[in-house]
Amino acid sequence: MNNNPYELNPQVQDQDYIQQLSVDCVIFGFHQNQLKVLVSRFKNTDLWGLLGGYVRQQENIDDAAKRILYDTTRLEGIYLEQYHTFGEYDRTCNEQLQLILQKNQIPIEDSHWMLRRFVSIGYYALVDFSQVQPSPGFLCDICEWYDLQQLPTLVLDHEIMIRKALACLQGGLDQKLVGFSLLPETFTMAELKILYETILAKKIRMNNFQRKILDLNILERIEKKYTGAAHKAPYLYRIAQRDKIIDSV
Amino acid sequence: MNNNPYELNPQVQDQDYIQQLSVDCVIFGFHQNQLKVLVSRFKNTDLWGLLGGYVRQQENIDDAAKRILYDTTRLEGIYLEQYHTFGEYDRTCNEQLQLILQKNQIPIEDSHWMLRRFVSIGYYALVDFSQVQPSPGFLCDICEWYDLQQLPTLVLDHEIMIRKALACLQGGLDQKLVGFSLLPETFTMAELKILYETILAKKIRMNNFQRKILDLNILERIEKKYTGAAHKAPYLYRIAQRDKIIDSV
Repeated sequence: MNNNPYELNPQVQDQDYIQQLSVDCVIFGFHQNQLKVLVSRFKNTDLWGLLGGYVRQQENIDDAAKRILYDTTRLEGIYLEQYHTFGEYDRTCNEQLQLILQKNQIPIEDSHWMLRRFVSIGYYALVDFSQVQPSPGFLCDICEWYDLQQLPTLVLDHEIMIRKALACLQGGLDQKLVGFSLLPETFTMAELKILYETILAKKIRMNNFQRKILDLNILERIEKKYTGAAHKAPYLYRIAQRDKIIDSV
Repeated sequence: MNNNPYELNPQVQDQDYIQQLSVDCVIFGFHQNQLKVLVSRFKNTDLWGLLGGYVRQQENIDDAAKRILYDTTRLEGIYLEQYHTFGEYDRTCNEQLQLILQKNQIPIEDSHWMLRRFVSIGYYALVDFSQVQPSPGFLCDICEWYDLQQLPTLVLDHEIMIRKALACLQGGLDQKLVGFSLLPETFTMAELKILYETILAKKIRMNNFQRKILDLNILERIEKKYTGAAHKAPYLYRIAQRDKIIDSV
């Protein structure tokens, strides 16, 4: 079976999938002190969307999200959390989808499955930016990272989905220690602080932050980072028990 | 249209509703220092379930939840929050539902809509126990409040749904001030503290608690509660700006 959930023939209503239900993944990455999100562009348009897909009849919704993430990033075992289900009745039946179908010479009827109402289960994923090899989703040609401050034109309510995912990420940062999933294996305390500051969009005092983080007892201090100026080199840290924080669904 | 989402005739697949998608409401109430949940019993069985229903094609999922709540409690404008969507593929297709149909002389075929897989969007509601006039849900005969420590036999994954709702309620207690929705219009500080202790299942020190709550600047102190012993009478409080906390969906 290919990864496209339904055949493009509008007559086909694939009963292997739950009708009118989708899964969308907000994939966050951290790069050059910016929090970025992975989106893909619909072929022959300037419209972008989250990486999404559908749920097979014999598949848990969490597994559908993991499958979609794997298809998109080739990563497994990454932090993934269901955060909200989006179900305004008019969120999907709009002109953007018609345009995408038209631009790709897909015959449209009112009954086309893509034009029906969809309820979408939102997940957010936190990935190490450097590990991802993005591949475009269904009907898309390219897949790129965008700064949250400079998002392209997104279809449907995907911008709302991203904003809500960010709010949930911010809310869970201390309780769930999710932020570490965005970093490479080793990092300095300053890098970790910048990550927190970026996600929370506010300045944090280093002394308080370092004490709070070290009190969690999850970090292991390893050798100093080589900077050429040994006496100023900061310590590198890594997660001592990564399974404690990679609490994937 | 009656409130039952589908006709009981198994041939009918009502296209006015999204197939394979349901909404379930965990309705919390607070009474005699116990946190209780409202559940209803399926006719002619000892099986109980959450109050639930389905989503109309032209209806937002939040509005479906409000409609189900109103049908069940006759209350409007109460605190309601979507907290998680439950979608294990085998959560619904089980013997309990077959039993319920059998016991109510409803002809069963494998294709009966009730026996299909359902993904359920979970909401929790916080109500003032004294204001509710519970009415049983679909296929049910009675509707009762149960202590969380003494739940009856629940169908499907409804016990998991309740536990998860409680965890979300605990997690959001300070951030969202949701707890006040469980109290009558006026209350003493001691009553509020007991509510917090009950939800969080731990003891709280009165001095710290009172300071923290008063610092929120949302309470208005009114007259002393009449107890017959004036010098010991505690103050009554009420929410000064209830719209700040009744942040319904």
